[in-house]
Amino acid sequence: MTLPGPSAPLYLDCDTGVDDSLALAYLLAAPEVDLVGVGSVSGNIDARQGAVNSLDLLALAGRDDVPVAVGAHDPLVGSYDGGAPSVHGRNGVGDVALPPSGREVTAESAVELLLRLSHEHAGLLRVVAVGPLTNLALALRADPTLPERVLDVTVMGGAALHPGNVTPAAEANIAKDPEAAAEVLAVDWDVTLVPLDVTMAHVFEEADRKALLEAGTALAPWLGEVLDLYFGFHVPTFGRRCSALHDPLAAAIAVGGVTPTVAPRVPVVVDATDGPGRGQTVCDLRGLYAGYPDVPGARTRVVLATDAPLAPHLVERLLTL
Amino acid sequence: MTLPGPSAPLYLDCDTGVDDSLALAYLLAAPEVDLVGVGSVSGNIDARQGAVNSLDLLALAGRDDVPVAVGAHDPLVGSYDGGAPSVHGRNGVGDVALPPSGREVTAESAVELLLRLSHEHAGLLRVVAVGPLTNLALALRADPTLPERVLDVTVMGGAALHPGNVTPAAEANIAKDPEAAAEVLAVDWDVTLVPLDVTMAHVFEEADRKALLEAGTALAPWLGEVLDLYFGFHVPTFGRRCSALHDPLAAAIAVGGVTPTVAPRVPVVVDATDGPGRGQTVCDLRGLYAGYPDVPGARTRVVLATDAPLAPHLVERLLTL
Repeated sequence: MTLPGPSAPLYLDCDTGVDDSLALAYLLAAPEVDLVGVGSVSGNIDARQGAVNSLDLLALAGRDDVPVAVGAHDPLVGSYDGGAPSVHGRNGVGDVALPPSGREVTAESAVELLLRLSHEHAGLLRVVAVGPLTNLALALRADPTLPERVLDVTVMGGAALHPGNVTPAAEANIAKDPEAAAEVLAVDWDVTLVPLDVTMAHVFEEADRKALLEAGTALAPWLGEVLDLYFGFHVPTFGRRCSALHDPLAAAIAVGGVTPTVAPRVPVVVDATDGPGRGQTVCDLRGLYAGYPDVPGARTRVVLATDAPLAPHLVERLLTL
Repeated sequence: MTLPGPSAPLYLDCDTGVDDSLALAYLLAAPEVDLVGVGSVSGNIDARQGAVNSLDLLALAGRDDVPVAVGAHDPLVGSYDGGAPSVHGRNGVGDVALPPSGREVTAESAVELLLRLSHEHAGLLRVVAVGPLTNLALALRADPTLPERVLDVTVMGGAALHPGNVTPAAEANIAKDPEAAAEVLAVDWDVTLVPLDVTMAHVFEEADRKALLEAGTALAPWLGEVLDLYFGFHVPTFGRRCSALHDPLAAAIAVGGVTPTVAPRVPVVVDATDGPGRGQTVCDLRGLYAGYPDVPGARTRVVLATDAPLAPHLVERLLTL
């Protein structure tokens, strides 16, 4: 498969992961971008298994050209917590046995891959990060000039005015490595944060999953299978089998498939204390009664609403794979 | 003035304060309760001036029978920050010179008054706290059996899923003494928290203020004057002269003048770290997609919505004074 026309080089950092799988597939199906590398990080699953999952998904899509690098196993502080087997399965992809790709991860680490790509595509590289931000933080530590060569960064993570999902205040990607998130959000680059406030508003239903299962294509039916366990996990939250579209929403916002309608640039600080707010993204949204004007000098764009539901667009794109 | 019929004994702890003045007046006008004591605490203004303001307002209402005690000048940790003169005026009541009551504060401290009242009205005493929770924390330290003698506690404070008003995460009453709030909310008594989530939804307009100014009664016109500066403070937030009804909403909820419609009992922890969430009330509201069921074992009721706007009811009651 060759991507048509001019497209933006994009590096995906992920902990594949059920919704990471959807994000990866969406980016493969997006003519607007050229997926030039995938890094893994421990989060939903450990970094090595996450990389294997990415390789398997890429193979099903006929995209063995995309390098996959293993990233950080442990967060900056402490150690990997064992992932979320009840959410993403023991193997990260809903306990579905994907056909093994037979391909190996790169000799480069995820940090090395990201830094190399940032030189090859200097000024053009786009970054989408849908796992803990450990790799990005380590890349910034290794080369503080990285932001000069990155066009923008889109992060699925955090909760602004929405409850957290792993603690009352914290969302999983940020909670699993608050120190890394604090470092990444403290740097001067163009970050779009896609928090639970908006990802929980985009839901995949059984009809959407059925469309994937019946696609008759190489990858999409597997995605339908992978979603099965994840749909069950959402029953206590939504009262029915379905799933929030966390990671694919960040991918779609990065690509332009969904457009933010409320997304102020405001100061964002990550709580890296050991208090009850640990892992919280403290966003200064005190402008709410004034329609959320940008705060002068603030770098981070916090997405609070979008123009359209992601699910129909996501299905349409995934059915091409 | 004698309150008609059986009414519940109520102790008000406040930092008077413009909206505290409205809360105090509302409670005087409420036949449902008998205001048996007022304690002051530093917050909007220092504790001594707050007590003087309460004395002056009580005198205008002909209620020199209500004892007023001075409470804590400093929070549990650190010292009084100088109040909020740009919000409440240099004297706490919008720089309006109220007629001096000529009455003295009690020899008792606010803590001593609260503890004595809890014995006199054991099992019946209701507490409304609309300032920092320093006095309540000190009373609990002085006598940990206090909760056994208090019917319920209604607190104006905190921000649950709403931005703070003094930091991105923290509301003023809690932010001014997070350690005290943490202690008060950790105790096993029946606390209703009335946070910015709901107080910002209740707004007093110029027409309401004009009604007070033209009341032709002893106290109400003074309250209209006191609100003038406070109305100006709200212009950057709401785009017009008006005011949120923080403290009187807590009073009205305690009295039953306004009824909570969404008010789950959920775990609430106060962030007393030195991190970006300091002073935040971390409420576990992860049940939002299930309609906010009570969390088993949780003590604190967090009010998120009410049945009716407070302003018309508040005006009606204040016009009687």
